[in-house]
Amino acid sequence: MRPSGRKPHELRKVSFERGFSKHAEGSCLVRFGDTHVMCLATVEEKVPPWLKGAGKGWVTAEYGMLPRATGDRMRREAAQGKQSGRTQEIQRLIGRSLRAVVDLVGLGEKQITLDCDVIQADGGTRTAAITGSWIALYDALKWMEAREMFAKNPLRDHVAAISCGIHNGEVVADLDYDEDSSAETDANFVMTGKGGIVEIQGTAEGEPFSQERFLELLSLAQKGIGELVELQKKAIA
Amino acid sequence: MRPSGRKPHELRKVSFERGFSKHAEGSCLVRFGDTHVMCLATVEEKVPPWLKGAGKGWVTAEYGMLPRATGDRMRREAAQGKQSGRTQEIQRLIGRSLRAVVDLVGLGEKQITLDCDVIQADGGTRTAAITGSWIALYDALKWMEAREMFAKNPLRDHVAAISCGIHNGEVVADLDYDEDSSAETDANFVMTGKGGIVEIQGTAEGEPFSQERFLELLSLAQKGIGELVELQKKAIA
Amino acid sequence: MRPSGRKPHELRKVSFERGFSKHAEGSCLVRFGDTHVMCLATVEEKVPPWLKGAGKGWVTAEYGMLPRATGDRMRREAAQGKQSGRTQEIQRLIGRSLRAVVDLVGLGEKQITLDCDVIQADGGTRTAAITGSWIALYDALKWMEAREMFAKNPLRDHVAAISCGIHNGEVVADLDYDEDSSAETDANFVMTGKGGIVEIQGTAEGEPFSQERFLELLSLAQKGIGELVELQKKAIA
Amino acid sequence: MRPSGRKPHELRKVSFERGFSKHAEGSCLVRFGDTHVMCLATVEEKVPPWLKGAGKGWVTAEYGMLPRATGDRMRREAAQGKQSGRTQEIQRLIGRSLRAVVDLVGLGEKQITLDCDVIQADGGTRTAAITGSWIALYDALKWMEAREMFAKNPLRDHVAAISCGIHNGEVVADLDYDEDSSAETDANFVMTGKGGIVEIQGTAEGEPFSQERFLELLSLAQKGIGELVELQKKAIA
Amino acid sequence: MRPSGRKPHELRKVSFERGFSKHAEGSCLVRFGDTHVMCLATVEEKVPPWLKGAGKGWVTAEYGMLPRATGDRMRREAAQGKQSGRTQEIQRLIGRSLRAVVDLVGLGEKQITLDCDVIQADGGTRTAAITGSWIALYDALKWMEAREMFAKNPLRDHVAAISCGIHNGEVVADLDYDEDSSAETDANFVMTGKGGIVEIQGTAEGEPFSQERFLELLSLAQKGIGELVELQKKAIA
Amino acid sequence: MRPSGRKPHELRKVSFERGFSKHAEGSCLVRFGDTHVMCLATVEEKVPPWLKGAGKGWVTAEYGMLPRATGDRMRREAAQGKQSGRTQEIQRLIGRSLRAVVDLVGLGEKQITLDCDVIQADGGTRTAAITGSWIALYDALKWMEAREMFAKNPLRDHVAAISCGIHNGEVVADLDYDEDSSAETDANFVMTGKGGIVEIQGTAEGEPFSQERFLELLSLAQKGIGELVELQKKAIA
Repeated sequence: MRPSGRKPHELRKVSFERGFSKHAEGSCLVRFGDTHVMCLATVEEKVPPWLKGAGKGWVTAEYGMLPRATGDRMRREAAQGKQSGRTQEIQRLIGRSLRAVVDLVGLGEKQITLDCDVIQADGGTRTAAITGSWIALYDALKWMEAREMFAKNPLRDHVAAISCGIHNGEVVADLDYDEDSSAETDANFVMTGKGGIVEIQGTAEGEPFSQERFLELLSLAQKGIGELVELQKKAIA
Repeated sequence: MRPSGRKPHELRKVSFERGFSKHAEGSCLVRFGDTHVMCLATVEEKVPPWLKGAGKGWVTAEYGMLPRATGDRMRREAAQGKQSGRTQEIQRLIGRSLRAVVDLVGLGEKQITLDCDVIQADGGTRTAAITGSWIALYDALKWMEAREMFAKNPLRDHVAAISCGIHNGEVVADLDYDEDSSAETDANFVMTGKGGIVEIQGTAEGEPFSQERFLELLSLAQKGIGELVELQKKAIA
Repeated sequence: MRPSGRKPHELRKVSFERGFSKHAEGSCLVRFGDTHVMCLATVEEKVPPWLKGAGKGWVTAEYGMLPRATGDRMRREAAQGKQSGRTQEIQRLIGRSLRAVVDLVGLGEKQITLDCDVIQADGGTRTAAITGSWIALYDALKWMEAREMFAKNPLRDHVAAISCGIHNGEVVADLDYDEDSSAETDANFVMTGKGGIVEIQGTAEGEPFSQERFLELLSLAQKGIGELVELQKKAIA
Repeated sequence: MRPSGRKPHELRKVSFERGFSKHAEGSCLVRFGDTHVMCLATVEEKVPPWLKGAGKGWVTAEYGMLPRATGDRMRREAAQGKQSGRTQEIQRLIGRSLRAVVDLVGLGEKQITLDCDVIQADGGTRTAAITGSWIALYDALKWMEAREMFAKNPLRDHVAAISCGIHNGEVVADLDYDEDSSAETDANFVMTGKGGIVEIQGTAEGEPFSQERFLELLSLAQKGIGELVELQKKAIA
Repeated sequence: MRPSGRKPHELRKVSFERGFSKHAEGSCLVRFGDTHVMCLATVEEKVPPWLKGAGKGWVTAEYGMLPRATGDRMRREAAQGKQSGRTQEIQRLIGRSLRAVVDLVGLGEKQITLDCDVIQADGGTRTAAITGSWIALYDALKWMEAREMFAKNPLRDHVAAISCGIHNGEVVADLDYDEDSSAETDANFVMTGKGGIVEIQGTAEGEPFSQERFLELLSLAQKGIGELVELQKKAIA
Repeated sequence: MRPSGRKPHELRKVSFERGFSKHAEGSCLVRFGDTHVMCLATVEEKVPPWLKGAGKGWVTAEYGMLPRATGDRMRREAAQGKQSGRTQEIQRLIGRSLRAVVDLVGLGEKQITLDCDVIQADGGTRTAAITGSWIALYDALKWMEAREMFAKNPLRDHVAAISCGIHNGEVVADLDYDEDSSAETDANFVMTGKGGIVEIQGTAEGEPFSQERFLELLSLAQKGIGELVELQKKAIA
């Protein structure tokens, strides 16, 4: 039995609130249960220095957690003067995940930055951030399309993410904080709408796990991501 | 005529959304028109090092702006490795303002930190942050009261803030970004429920201003803060 | 009775020592009693990046306190790796104050930087810095005038600053450290030679103050700044 | 055909040079072909602050690349004033991998730090670092055993790592830089001597990959890590 | 002929202004011609962490240059967020030089910090700083003696410093900026009142120099330091 | 008697391992007994900003110590976010020493960076780094010569370095850590193949030393550097 009473494959209630920002070219407040992440897409007519003149664009992400997004207050990274290793790891993952479904040459020499800020955390902030950022990215690209900033919309597919893990010996999907902090194994999966795998990150927190166990996690992830993609489709309908 | 069509003394629509955070001891999402600030109060059983053993508590604040809270995306302060002078100035102001209405000895050796994060900016983020933080502080102190963490609730009064300025030669209250960026003079006032002045910060952006003009600003501020305090009272009723 | 034996409106002994630096285009060692600040003006043929091509110049300031300017030694900001919030607040104030009396378009695409370094502190370092920087700025502009670096000297007026406060229930001018550290209210005023107000920053350290009290402070400041401007006039005569 | 002429499953020449450091409690210079990493284990009688009094020890890692370990010189992280996101990601991975095979309670309140410094890079620095660090850790624990610093050696198993990827459409093991920089998919696997999975990190650099492809990578990794563990066994024999 | 018209062995006009700081336990404004350095000694009842319980004290120094101490304005180190390599080298040298004439055991568990801030630079700031710091140190130790903070004054000798160099092929003493910036060889010497050598730092800026030349520099330094020590003696008389 | 049993003038066993890096244009692993330093030379077609257009090149150095190069583990400078004063002092010394034997105009607008990383420290890391860097520099210039990157090889002479000191009252050469940490006086000498002096840095750790003693150190240094230059000649033969 899961602490939340959910069935092993059952996701938390997921919702997408589009366009909540007056300024951003795309925005989405995504909720995976009590995990709430604001995803804002910014379109800029520039690319990183190392990409200048390469005839292609860039999609990148920055991630942050508000100091009291968690049960105990964490130090503010801006006050501390640096981003933690965890923060950097997550923002690199979000950026890679979104680039996997964008034709960067088709985008042209522009940059889209996804700012993912966690308002409230209850496990799975990175998977929510990826899933919600896709919506913000979709809206930003639509905004660009309306301004004829490219010949053809460079978005190639959906992308969504879920964490699956082994908790109390059972394989479960979309772990909340209670489960996450006591899981034996925790794996994050990022997949496209067509079911292609973009990222797999599995970590044995306690005992190493077997290939069989891992395939169960992967199977659960495929099912869960399928549901998330359906929800994305409804949200942009 | 003001860009927004408001009358000189007319505030923007102000709202307080209490208790939106599952974790914080007090929380308030305050809206002054399109300026939206999340204010979260954290109660901790500790005081800053320089106050140890002094038999009193502390109230402090941290302020941040999400990178795309504004029309153009700003660099993330955590990525930049430091907080700007403006950020530090504002968070020091918020802390002082709230301490003015708390009996720190009565609070005992505890610290309350107000995290004010601007989700969307349209002028007046610091005044909204102070006004909304009072609500979060109120709730945090009620939370402490329920746990008998002090003999008597140390909150002594309301505190609220407003910006007034001279725009197109006219004295106006609660400037939005359009007005703020072209105002000749911009002044922030922080006052208590009883009308005491806690902070005054007036700056001539262009021409120096006269004492008469300043008194008009002060008078407008008194009226506006009176309204804000009424709205705070309704919000906690 | 004030700790120093001064009358309520009485300033400390103020002196300006011009041209003490062999290198700077303008320099002034200002003394407000035991508060000693070196103000050096540097003229450079450049403007900040965000002002390039705007056809106007810039006046800015940096502030620092030598580690042993105070009773106890403070950590050196360069060793600590960052400027405190207080330092940044003060240097922003000095810059704004001086810009209020300079015609930036008339200055042309040049930058004048005022370096204000406190050698010895006894309260009122920021007001002394503003008042002394005006002298250094005056001399730097004269230096430029002699080199025909502009058509018309862009200095429009004097600017000077004073702190006034409520100490032991009495309204007093030009607080020294003893008064400052126990004042109920502390306000800094920056005004021009013609009496226009450039900046007002009033803070209730203890009890909020009333409008009446504030007007008394303002009145004292007007008188004191009038005296400072007279002293500036004598210094440059 | 692989650029190096190797067969798909064929590892580069792997060697371990133990005890090359006069100071460290354990040390190993590991070579995966032209990738050379120094792994030094330091034993200290302390634990991180958050583990004090918890009755268990800690194993952690730091990773660095010498500026000219690569074809072009990179900026020195110490001169730049911060570690890159990539560096932090890798050192966190090394630490987690080694902790998976150590009984931290059995270790007692001690900390073992693995310093992994890349002298020369040719792809796979993190997998070489993990594999070589195990040797350094083994020697450091033997050193502690000789000093009776615990009742029972807390090392529970071998741990080793390999990268596998899809290059030119073919599944290959132990990618060198040439392959790595043009691989469609790159995955790092960390496994124990008994074949348990500790970490899986798979990333689609270009096209998303299928579950079938991923299982081929996993299978190749199992074989390769089996070989690495055999080589570790020989090295400590 | 030297640019200043001085004879080869001739020092610039040297003066010591003692006790100019109201707060510091010892203070000296030293002038070597147009090089002006403020040296302030702070006595604290603490020692660095690594010296705790060792039964001895510490003497250390910090060095800084005001941004416009030089012909062109340099960036403020506090604003830049770090001290340059040059700054660190000099402050380490000052500290070592003074420790050479203090009996640290006799000092007891106290720390004396010398803050050397260059107001105006014209070559030889480090040698002026050492020579002037000795005066500030002397006064701080007298201050301690008056308070019976040790059994016997731990100051064992004078210490002073001078730069000598080869300029236009000629060996000259106490180089000013004009000479320093075009010298072939520049050497700094620190010696005690009894003529013992504490530090020698010689650098060939252009051609390597011979042992003979070096001995000429050393001889000139001995003479010059002898004069500086006499001047110190007069200053404290 | 020296702790190592060496005669006063006797160097430790010195060896140079050339070309150990696959990437660097020149490389040398230098060993002075148990002090092992990797020196890698990087050739780049650029010069520092302040040298642009000056028609000459630059030779510079960076120095680092691996955290466990020493008996106790030191904090990693990259993790700490800054280089220590000692590190900066040493890397500036290495750069100056090598520039003394290179014709920078003849080098043309190129930069050669020497990365000196200490793998294992046992005293004398800076002298080993200078002596080994010369080999790496030699090889890098040969590499450039083979590519006709200049008209004439700009290397003018050998350069090597040694530390000499007074230990137990005796003048000894090439101090190891045991001697270094208890030496009364420690001096580093950098000289060319022709015997010209490039740098002298002598420090009295305890008692000041006399001119006679210093000349003995210098004499020992001349002999030792002569031997080092012979070893360099053999190494490049």
